[in-house]
Amino acid sequence: MTTPPTPPPDEVFDWLDAEAEKRANAGLVRQLRPRPAQADELDLAGNDYLGLARDKRVAGAAAAAALRWGAGATGSRLVTGSTELHTELELELARFCGAQAALVFSSGFAANLGAVTALSGSESAIVTDKYIHASLIEGCRLSRADVAAVAHSTPSAIKHALSTRRKPRALVVTDSVFSVDGDLAPLGELAGICREHGAALLVDDAHGFGVLGEGGRGAVHAAGLSGAPDVVTTLTLSKSLGAQGGAVVGPRRVIKHLVDTARSFIFDTALAPASAAAALAALHALKDEPGLAEKVIENAGNLAMSLKAAGLKASVPDAAVISVQAPSAETAVAWAAACAEQGIRVGCFRPPSVPDGISRLRLTARADLTEADVDRAVKVITATAPRGALA
Amino acid sequence: MTTPPTPPPDEVFDWLDAEAEKRANAGLVRQLRPRPAQADELDLAGNDYLGLARDKRVAGAAAAAALRWGAGATGSRLVTGSTELHTELELELARFCGAQAALVFSSGFAANLGAVTALSGSESAIVTDKYIHASLIEGCRLSRADVAAVAHSTPSAIKHALSTRRKPRALVVTDSVFSVDGDLAPLGELAGICREHGAALLVDDAHGFGVLGEGGRGAVHAAGLSGAPDVVTTLTLSKSLGAQGGAVVGPRRVIKHLVDTARSFIFDTALAPASAAAALAALHALKDEPGLAEKVIENAGNLAMSLKAAGLKASVPDAAVISVQAPSAETAVAWAAACAEQGIRVGCFRPPSVPDGISRLRLTARADLTEADVDRAVKVITATAPRGALA
Repeated sequence: MTTPPTPPPDEVFDWLDAEAEKRANAGLVRQLRPRPAQADELDLAGNDYLGLARDKRVAGAAAAAALRWGAGATGSRLVTGSTELHTELELELARFCGAQAALVFSSGFAANLGAVTALSGSESAIVTDKYIHASLIEGCRLSRADVAAVAHSTPSAIKHALSTRRKPRALVVTDSVFSVDGDLAPLGELAGICREHGAALLVDDAHGFGVLGEGGRGAVHAAGLSGAPDVVTTLTLSKSLGAQGGAVVGPRRVIKHLVDTARSFIFDTALAPASAAAALAALHALKDEPGLAEKVIENAGNLAMSLKAAGLKASVPDAAVISVQAPSAETAVAWAAACAEQGIRVGCFRPPSVPDGISRLRLTARADLTEADVDRAVKVITATAPRGALA
Repeated sequence: MTTPPTPPPDEVFDWLDAEAEKRANAGLVRQLRPRPAQADELDLAGNDYLGLARDKRVAGAAAAAALRWGAGATGSRLVTGSTELHTELELELARFCGAQAALVFSSGFAANLGAVTALSGSESAIVTDKYIHASLIEGCRLSRADVAAVAHSTPSAIKHALSTRRKPRALVVTDSVFSVDGDLAPLGELAGICREHGAALLVDDAHGFGVLGEGGRGAVHAAGLSGAPDVVTTLTLSKSLGAQGGAVVGPRRVIKHLVDTARSFIFDTALAPASAAAALAALHALKDEPGLAEKVIENAGNLAMSLKAAGLKASVPDAAVISVQAPSAETAVAWAAACAEQGIRVGCFRPPSVPDGISRLRLTARADLTEADVDRAVKVITATAPRGALA
């Protein structure tokens, strides 16, 4: 091939403008909308399911830890970044979930990258539900394993992929609660299939932890799998626990293996002390108020039922997440903007954040929603619905 | 192939034990050593180069932000995670560096993943120094680009790879200060080569920012490249700024492109308000005390010179990082432990954290080291040196 023509420095990134134009034409431009510290709007978009991010116990613990430990962890977990706070959080997370051990990462994204890559490899087959979270997909792409992504929520497809794999080891990877539609994976059935085929099961419980199971112990605990020797769970500390960070929970040897080999653990600065302390305080709050989790589920059910009764294409929530289908990416953006104008903050998910290409409003319930909040939200969302959004 | 024998659930992870035994035999087991909030030891291992993590202005800003904004950001930057704090930090980072725009990620690891993947793709060639940080390597592996990793610190090899590439677009990826030995990449020369070949230049300035350049504006600024239309810089907020998080700094259209396409940005919870506020306060401290950066360089130079004078194989630092070669992984671990017993905390880098396979002590200088600190450190490190460590 001949050498391509050499663009001058200020044209090297011209291709980005061409890409931006394509996205603009497809209605896929994204805007950052910074929010103030205090807003009057009703938040149905965030993942602070239990309302703990602003809880005084949680925010207060974060503040105290910043003053006591410093603003940052100063290094990776293997150098200077491990504090006694991190260890305490790991012990309590493992105990709460009923697992042998836990390891805290700086994000759920990093926890997923680390767990998928460290628990697979070139001798492994990975079988995933094709709707798993982007961070798990990135982990699969980094894994060097044979990867099969099969039809959503179809255990028979997982089974088929396991039985026809060409590698001795196998890892099945799934979300517990899928992040877009909020539906629950059949974890018990998947664990049974894994056992028939000698596979390990990795569950991302980001949207189940704090919401499902006994006192919010999560979907894996609810399925009776949290202490299992062949099941590994990933969590976020940034959703129900109102903080930042992620964790892997599971058998002790898995956790040791991650410490030695997970590149997103070894080569990353440790979670800030304030975030670790906040997650720990939130965990205590969850233990003190085990009814918080049920409240979220109840509120999500009421919200979804009312939206469906109003004629909208709302999903049936298994946890806190509800999706409402929109006719197109452009109408979804306009719809979310119209809701925001009337004081209701809702999420707007468009490609590539929706695996089936259908743009949606994405609503999340919280433990502290009132009946009046739900009524007001349904009224606004229905009144602003674009043509084609009503079933 | 016949179906492999099906192990019972408690044997599914037996292969991890076999891997652990291999690591144990090679001296590559890692231990987390949680530290207390207050320790008497002299820290020559962390990356808090300017001593700002525990600065009252910085830790105080983190605490105040947790109380004002909540412990967590509650969602991804594109949903509810963008606060006015994040925007202010981005504006100030860009201004400080002399670039058009900046984008904050939850970690430097995530910033590197996002920048490499979003600025390349299947139509791109990536040419890297083979000693780049693990997070950049992961980005390359996710990029779908043709990747060539060439000899360390060898501009002619970069040039050769660019001129023989098979893809129209090209991205050269390098650390500014390499994290293991602390040596500086020839950024000016690399930028010249990129321009000859129509390539963009991506520089990870994690260990240069806050330490090198005018008032700590970093290695890219020092090379006169920070406002260049074809250069993109990644930073951490967790080293010189004493907080947590990462950022990409560069041309506005690059930042917009990242908002729309970087998966480690879109699918990750935003940086916690406390960390964003801490980084912002640290940036203000750095502007108020521009001499902090020079102090680090001076201290690193003194420390390295004294170690060399004592007969140790110490690197010549271009920034704050000094490496001291050890005869083996086992002796490096024992050496670091002996230093710790005598109150000097040093890093110990072994495979896979060292690209050339040579295990090392890794020391970092800080702005607040005294002459007595340096003398004490050199005395302990020399007295505990294993056979074969002296040149």
